Amino acid sequence: MDDGFTISIVGLGLMGGSLALALRQDAPRSPLHASRIIAVGRNAETLAAARAAGAIDAWATDLAEGVAAADVVVLATPVRAILRLLPEVGRHARPGALVLDLGSSKAQICAAMAELPAGLQPVGGHPMCGKEVAGFAAAEATLFRDRPFVLCPLPRTAPAALERVLALVQATGARPIVLDPALHDRAVAAISHLPYAVSVALVNAVAAVDDPLAWSLAASGFRDTSRLAASDVEMMLDTLLTNREAVLDWLGAFQTQLAGLKMALTDRDEATLREQLVAAQARRARLRFS
Amino acid sequence: MDDGFTISIVGLGLMGGSLALALRQDAPRSPLHASRIIAVGRNAETLAAARAAGAIDAWATDLAEGVAAADVVVLATPVRAILRLLPEVGRHARPGALVLDLGSSKAQICAAMAELPAGLQPVGGHPMCGKEVAGFAAAEATLFRDRPFVLCPLPRTAPAALERVLALVQATGARPIVLDPALHDRAVAAISHLPYAVSVALVNAVAAVDDPLAWSLAASGFRDTSRLAASDVEMMLDTLLTNREAVLDWLGAFQTQLAGLKMALTDRDEATLREQLVAAQARRARLRFS
Repeated sequence: MDDGFTISIVGLGLMGGSLALALRQDAPRSPLHASRIIAVGRNAETLAAARAAGAIDAWATDLAEGVAAADVVVLATPVRAILRLLPEVGRHARPGALVLDLGSSKAQICAAMAELPAGLQPVGGHPMCGKEVAGFAAAEATLFRDRPFVLCPLPRTAPAALERVLALVQATGARPIVLDPALHDRAVAAISHLPYAVSVALVNAVAAVDDPLAWSLAASGFRDTSRLAASDVEMMLDTLLTNREAVLDWLGAFQTQLAGLKMALTDRDEATLREQLVAAQARRARLRFS
Repeated sequence: MDDGFTISIVGLGLMGGSLALALRQDAPRSPLHASRIIAVGRNAETLAAARAAGAIDAWATDLAEGVAAADVVVLATPVRAILRLLPEVGRHARPGALVLDLGSSKAQICAAMAELPAGLQPVGGHPMCGKEVAGFAAAEATLFRDRPFVLCPLPRTAPAALERVLALVQATGARPIVLDPALHDRAVAAISHLPYAVSVALVNAVAAVDDPLAWSLAASGFRDTSRLAASDVEMMLDTLLTNREAVLDWLGAFQTQLAGLKMALTDRDEATLREQLVAAQARRARLRFS
């Protein structure tokens, strides 16, 4: 494997496609490089175009065929598709293969990975770099660069297997963070899934009246606050449903804060309202985004 | 006045400062140009620095002195300061002067403008171009360019006075939109004040737990959804309190949407949840921001 390895990427969308492009770009430089990239997907046209563009070396629409030769299998579909595909990967991947995923929630996936045949080496993964566009057309070789990339090894995962995944992640330019799946899910519910839900409710609240005047005045504030609502629905539906409890907890915490703000405004309680605005302003000003 | 006019800008912050810079830049080109820009403020140091930099021609910390010679008085402070200053402007502005403001809510300001002495020509104004930074240091000559700039003339405002304000707004590169104050307030409550309140509640909800892990994973999604929470507190406090009823209505509509989403997730009602996500995705994708 030090002479390069074969990687099968299942799902050549934004994430899987960006991984292929990043590894291709890295190939000449890294001692541990992907010498052969196979994409597995449903859309033969997209896959053939990616092959023609040189982004991948081969493709398959059949999972068994596509993963049989892989040293590393990467599942890059929405979370519930990953959960459905894992048993099939378990049947068709070759012994010793690494199994990594790029799904947005980790506890259910890592639990399903624990059921894989003993010969396989599973690691949960989540690159923290969304865009509100989906599909291979939006993929970029630099998507992961300087972004956190969470890795959740299982108790059964061999240290050498985790090392290899760390090298793979570093080859994309991402910053790997090894994390417990439950801690990951709770943290991303706060900083990713809650903001998405809030953004969806914001757009739907304004759309319920659908005043052309309001839309025509919308500026950068509304644009940014509503951006996440444009995210891929299948991906986010799977994410919310597989991280349901953590998301519901954070939704409750958010509702409490919003109700407090609304009450202060209703009561013209300027001191309390100011306190809330000052707290948010000060906290937001201290945040640093890479 | 066709040979240029004297403009007094009360409050040389982000908005007032950007107006001064835009008019200064425009001066040589426009037949109706600001030949003399006077700034009125509390901070002599900022004002003197702006004078030294050539952004303004003169400054005063005394309102009476600062507005006495003005053909146009522009109030560029938070809304409640505008409401406090208007009667004083009425006492000291010279007969025939235009009085324009740049406040974020319009109904209360236009009502107060109706009480100005008969000789003055009041027009409410709201340039739709926030930034989450405040102060003259953040001012830019291009801040208003291609942005909507709402104007609310009063029934008493002379057509010629409105024409002059339209020319002034066009000189900044903004797109003027003449609008009823109540319609303005309801529309901006939806697309500006509601997103701000939501952003504040989001930051405060996550900050209540203040998990360093969550903050470290925060990516562009949280950055954008929470950006408005960094807005200037005095400006936004005044805005919320002077547009209270419209903001409370929209907060209620938002709470209803969010509760619906939470219920669908609680019940694992995938069809309803999908419907909500799809509706928001489709609506957001159709929005165009200049």
